[in-house]
Amino acid sequence: MPFLGALCVYFLIGLRPVMTNNITEDIDVLVFLPQNNSYPFSHARVAPAILYAQQRLQAEGGQYSGIHFNIHFENSDCVNGALFLLLDRSCGQKPDLILGPVCEYEAAAVVRMASHWDIPVISAGALAAGFSNKNTEFSQLTRIAPSYVKMAETFTAMFEHFTWRSALLLFEDDKQERNCYFTLEGVYHLMADFNIKSYAVSMEERLDTDDILQNIHDTEVVIMCMGADRIREVMLAAHRRRLTNGSYMFFNVELFNASSYGNGSWKRGDKYDSDARQAYASLNTVTLLRTVKPEFEKFSVEMKKSVEKSGFHGCKDCGSVNMFVEGFHDAMLLYAIALHEAMKNGYSKKNGTEITSHMWNRTFEGIAGQVSMDVNGDRNGDFSLMAMTNVDAGTYEVVANYFGGNGTFQLLPAFNAEHFTLRGRHKAQPEVPDKSCGLGVSALTGVIVGAVLGTALLIAFYLFRKNYRITIERRTQGEECDTGKHRQLREDSIRSNFSAA
Amino acid sequence: MPFLGALCVYFLIGLRPVMTNNITEDIDVLVFLPQNNSYPFSHARVAPAILYAQQRLQAEGGQYSGIHFNIHFENSDCVNGALFLLLDRSCGQKPDLILGPVCEYEAAAVVRMASHWDIPVISAGALAAGFSNKNTEFSQLTRIAPSYVKMAETFTAMFEHFTWRSALLLFEDDKQERNCYFTLEGVYHLMADFNIKSYAVSMEERLDTDDILQNIHDTEVVIMCMGADRIREVMLAAHRRRLTNGSYMFFNVELFNASSYGNGSWKRGDKYDSDARQAYASLNTVTLLRTVKPEFEKFSVEMKKSVEKSGFHGCKDCGSVNMFVEGFHDAMLLYAIALHEAMKNGYSKKNGTEITSHMWNRTFEGIAGQVSMDVNGDRNGDFSLMAMTNVDAGTYEVVANYFGGNGTFQLLPAFNAEHFTLRGRHKAQPEVPDKSCGLGVSALTGVIVGAVLGTALLIAFYLFRKNYRITIERRTQGEECDTGKHRQLREDSIRSNFSAA
Repeated sequence: MPFLGALCVYFLIGLRPVMTNNITEDIDVLVFLPQNNSYPFSHARVAPAILYAQQRLQAEGGQYSGIHFNIHFENSDCVNGALFLLLDRSCGQKPDLILGPVCEYEAAAVVRMASHWDIPVISAGALAAGFSNKNTEFSQLTRIAPSYVKMAETFTAMFEHFTWRSALLLFEDDKQERNCYFTLEGVYHLMADFNIKSYAVSMEERLDTDDILQNIHDTEVVIMCMGADRIREVMLAAHRRRLTNGSYMFFNVELFNASSYGNGSWKRGDKYDSDARQAYASLNTVTLLRTVKPEFEKFSVEMKKSVEKSGFHGCKDCGSVNMFVEGFHDAMLLYAIALHEAMKNGYSKKNGTEITSHMWNRTFEGIAGQVSMDVNGDRNGDFSLMAMTNVDAGTYEVVANYFGGNGTFQLLPAFNAEHFTLRGRHKAQPEVPDKSCGLGVSALTGVIVGAVLGTALLIAFYLFRKNYRITIERRTQGEECDTGKHRQLREDSIRSNFSAA
Repeated sequence: MPFLGALCVYFLIGLRPVMTNNITEDIDVLVFLPQNNSYPFSHARVAPAILYAQQRLQAEGGQYSGIHFNIHFENSDCVNGALFLLLDRSCGQKPDLILGPVCEYEAAAVVRMASHWDIPVISAGALAAGFSNKNTEFSQLTRIAPSYVKMAETFTAMFEHFTWRSALLLFEDDKQERNCYFTLEGVYHLMADFNIKSYAVSMEERLDTDDILQNIHDTEVVIMCMGADRIREVMLAAHRRRLTNGSYMFFNVELFNASSYGNGSWKRGDKYDSDARQAYASLNTVTLLRTVKPEFEKFSVEMKKSVEKSGFHGCKDCGSVNMFVEGFHDAMLLYAIALHEAMKNGYSKKNGTEITSHMWNRTFEGIAGQVSMDVNGDRNGDFSLMAMTNVDAGTYEVVANYFGGNGTFQLLPAFNAEHFTLRGRHKAQPEVPDKSCGLGVSALTGVIVGAVLGTALLIAFYLFRKNYRITIERRTQGEECDTGKHRQLREDSIRSNFSAA
């Protein structure tokens, strides 16, 4: 009998790999992507990646081949489209998994409902800081692309490394999808310990570079999120005012549009090209770190083919794999891994909370490299810092990388410390960041100036103490003031609540 | 035959009044009110008014007696409760009419869905400016209580009448329901042509009256929305600094809590009562105009009885009829009128768009007086301006009324022009409102202190030396600067998007 028992154990051990793979389940996936091709996450670009992942997962003999994904693509309009579709079809069978939407306001509504119904949502969007709070209404959200707050870590790492203390956040705001608003909100959110101001630019209005540059004067670093043409306009204006001489650091954040940064981004073929090239010597770009692995090359080729086959040739780099294409591909893998684990543990596919918990706090191999999810279900991000390394040619190189997984800031050979050193600056900044006017300091300065003045008068008086008639005239003019165009931000805060919420 | 035709016509004419009344229909009404009694629009307070209206409408022989309202009360939690309830029950029969919710964010979600499903929504809440745009997602919303923008008309009328030009909006913000934020947003929204700044106060933090008063100095008018104790704190601090001497106008907006304004609102039984009374001589209150008509008295008595019967004695004036109680009562009347008209025209109760259109741009007799709805489906508001008319006794009177229907500002006998005239003021205000900074002023103070110090020394010197003649002339110029604590608002704008959206 002991022999039979041992045999039985060996038999079970031998069977184990087969058993663990032996999970079969039908999974209804609802994917929200815009049919409108103007988005970098449009259906035409991202759907092939999802189908690619599906094929790989269902390949014969694979660990997840028993999972049959029924994928339904639905349109997303970045407003309420996804919400209405989800609700209108919710009376029937509810989906087991939702992929997307990407746009913040639309995602907020969909994730709210999905969390209420215990349906996992994975998105390569929903990057705004507000989604970080997963305690209540966003409990089922897993973010497979690094959020804006993760991007902002690159800035905190830089600020600490270079001991910068103040920044102006300059962004354009369309009051609709508000990508740049949310992008720099992430920076604002994370950098509470620094002295941060912000300046919003409306999409409709002409850029008031005079006013912008006036706001720059008391900060060290300018972080911008705007269209490429407007970035150039600001840089040219700054150059004309000699603000690009190293006394200010300029950054732009460009996560999705590869074509609007790096080599030649200053070039327009107009008479300002030469100035722009020189101005851009002070402009650094924070973007996603690009990784390459052999498997990814094959994926890229497939994606290019699929996009071309769909007859979509809207843009220069439409066929390239961006963060969304990669993210939604990896979303399928991550879900498969989590579902597999949950079911092994005896849970059903309808237990969204359980499946979601298996997607968080884990690292897995994605299509472009390792994907690391933090304990809060948000992907850790790796970012690159690009700077112009050859001013004559106007060419850019990656000079540093930031790795979100372990929070390290890595300097590359092309890095030039000189380039990131603020010139012609007092080392010490006002101690109290909130009092942007330095009230205490300036009053003290005034008292000292006044006292010195009085003393000097006394001494002068003493030196010429004869029967003179002294007339002292003094004129003080208003001190320089800090103009803040905060009204726009406020207005914006107010309009936003319902305009697109 | 002509005779028979004429007879037929007479018969039909005679029958007409009967025919028009002869509409019978079952109407499912879904009412969202909080079970939580801390709200002035809680179920215990408002439900009796809705049932009262139902009874009146269904009374035998009345024009609307054929309409049978099936009223379902559901809980509203001012977050997502109403949305989730609506959606979870939406797979069955959808309601014909939704009353409530009141809270802004919850209402936004419910109205969005209701508009998508063509269900009329009437609320005595949803008062924020964002709901004014009824082109898309709020198309089915009718607001039966005057919105915050309507309230703000009172201020524009006053500003024009008294030729004031600048104001500081001072409000507390709980970042959850945000009543005060939305209240003064209405003012901000409407007063774009004036020089308006704002200052948000967090609910958790101690009031920094020094900082607040520093922000006051370059504005003429301070408009506040805060708890009664904080209003008192600000007024006392302003009084200590002699800002209540007529050189500034102070207002608070208090639409719902009758007990926190008017006679005795300054009184706490502490040692500051006397100062507070004097300070409040500069504090004016904008509130809802109260009307009285015989029918309303009966309604008031009934409401008091109902609230008492429900065993709800939470507050001093819980039994009194507030804007919400009145509004939801009148909502039933307005819907009945509109449904009746729509059905007479051959439309069904399921045609929400048609019924809603009959509720807009009309005037009808509500329980407290005439109710006038504008073309956008928002109620025109009548407001009162209260001021302290007896400083010795510390008593208030209504000194002016604003009538939203025709936009007139009516001065009452108690009105004292002197009280509303800014004293010790330059007529002209700085042209550029955005310049923000206290730097100039404080540095100037320092310089003056220093110069005085020097001058004193000189004079001492003169007195001792005797044989010198000293003439000192001094001219100071200096632009007034505006310190703005906008960061709070900005942060708030950022947090708000998802924290409660």
